[in-house]
Amino acid sequence: MLPKTELKFIKSLKDKKNRYAERLFVTEGKKLTGDLIAAGVLPNKLYVVRGLELENEFASLPIAIEEVSNSEMEQMSNLQSARDVLAVFPFLEEKPYQVPVSGLVLALDTIQDPGNFGTILRLADWYGVKAVVCSLETADLYNPKVIQATMGSLARVQVNYMDLELFFDENRLPVFGAVMEGVNPSGFKWNGSAILLIGNEGKGIRPTLDSKLTKRLSIPRFGYAESLNAAVATGIVLDNLLNP
Amino acid sequence: MLPKTELKFIKSLKDKKNRYAERLFVTEGKKLTGDLIAAGVLPNKLYVVRGLELENEFASLPIAIEEVSNSEMEQMSNLQSARDVLAVFPFLEEKPYQVPVSGLVLALDTIQDPGNFGTILRLADWYGVKAVVCSLETADLYNPKVIQATMGSLARVQVNYMDLELFFDENRLPVFGAVMEGVNPSGFKWNGSAILLIGNEGKGIRPTLDSKLTKRLSIPRFGYAESLNAAVATGIVLDNLLNP
Repeated sequence: MLPKTELKFIKSLKDKKNRYAERLFVTEGKKLTGDLIAAGVLPNKLYVVRGLELENEFASLPIAIEEVSNSEMEQMSNLQSARDVLAVFPFLEEKPYQVPVSGLVLALDTIQDPGNFGTILRLADWYGVKAVVCSLETADLYNPKVIQATMGSLARVQVNYMDLELFFDENRLPVFGAVMEGVNPSGFKWNGSAILLIGNEGKGIRPTLDSKLTKRLSIPRFGYAESLNAAVATGIVLDNLLNP
Repeated sequence: MLPKTELKFIKSLKDKKNRYAERLFVTEGKKLTGDLIAAGVLPNKLYVVRGLELENEFASLPIAIEEVSNSEMEQMSNLQSARDVLAVFPFLEEKPYQVPVSGLVLALDTIQDPGNFGTILRLADWYGVKAVVCSLETADLYNPKVIQATMGSLARVQVNYMDLELFFDENRLPVFGAVMEGVNPSGFKWNGSAILLIGNEGKGIRPTLDSKLTKRLSIPRFGYAESLNAAVATGIVLDNLLNP
């Protein structure tokens, strides 16, 4: 049986404060956990439901694997229905932001919904985006809901948090913004190096950053919805820019 | 004070069985509730947090408005943090599916995540999609998470549930499917009348429907993610078809 203190410790990682104190985060599910391991990230510890047959990718790892009961797994889980596998990983290595030689950088001005943020990271991975630069107010990368929504893309996308105003002051790339009034991204021509700025779900791009846009892009509307979901809008603009 | 039976009744509408027995659903938040009212749907009852100033759009409604305490609102709420307004609406009028004279119909083969389903309905509203046809296993339209994710588009999009195999047997429109191996939807030419079929989040399009596709569309990948979120993929394909 898992000691109560260990159960409590795993559960405590739901809180950002505890995650950052320990510099640990949790993944749930065989697929997601396996994807991170395949990307070269080694968990500190793996918990598996008793009786589960583990593929070699897990069994051959040089780490502690602990069998737990279904009830213990449920107690540790952040999901509505717990999975068979839960792992505790150390935070990823932080690489300093580097201006890419070419390609697209994604900048996020305060994406707050963890599901949206994770979905955007998955999108960035799909489209080969060079880096994702997030305002300091953006959701935490290690939030369990972000982790689950990235579907393993976490380890393959470079993410940096920084003061976006300072970032844009020092930046020399053109800055495209996804806004409500602008040119159609379909057919928009650019030279292959730029930053795409996506605003907050409710408030959009803050005025001090909006003023730094060199091009305003707007997905044309053919019906009546007032807006699009932030992750969906990001996907549509990325596709227009990178799959013209 | 709200009678306990009334509190309990509202809470009971979280369950699909109860929603369908009563043919009632719940919206939360001033904006979403106001959007539905603006679209011509009248709630049976409106609950507002005591002391909240109501805009005329609410105050002039010929319906019961009940002031409740913060704690009562929290007890009724399906959200992590309750809003100021909660309304109980009757189910929308069911219109039989009609083959549109032209334009795009969206077909969903078992979208199960309520957030994805709501986001897709919001997308359908944005792009002016004529109708959304859902397999019987698709998430329930009146699930609180679907309702919240539609952001008011609910009342403006025609949604029908049906056996998709029968639907496709009787259908004479071309059927495009969003799949993993197919042609790039960017630059794809079509004649303006078709059905776009989106598959389940994990399993994709079921084989018996896959065999009915007249064109396979696949969003090109430039990076490494294994797949895209279903709502994001729907948005990208819709944009390619409707905003070429």
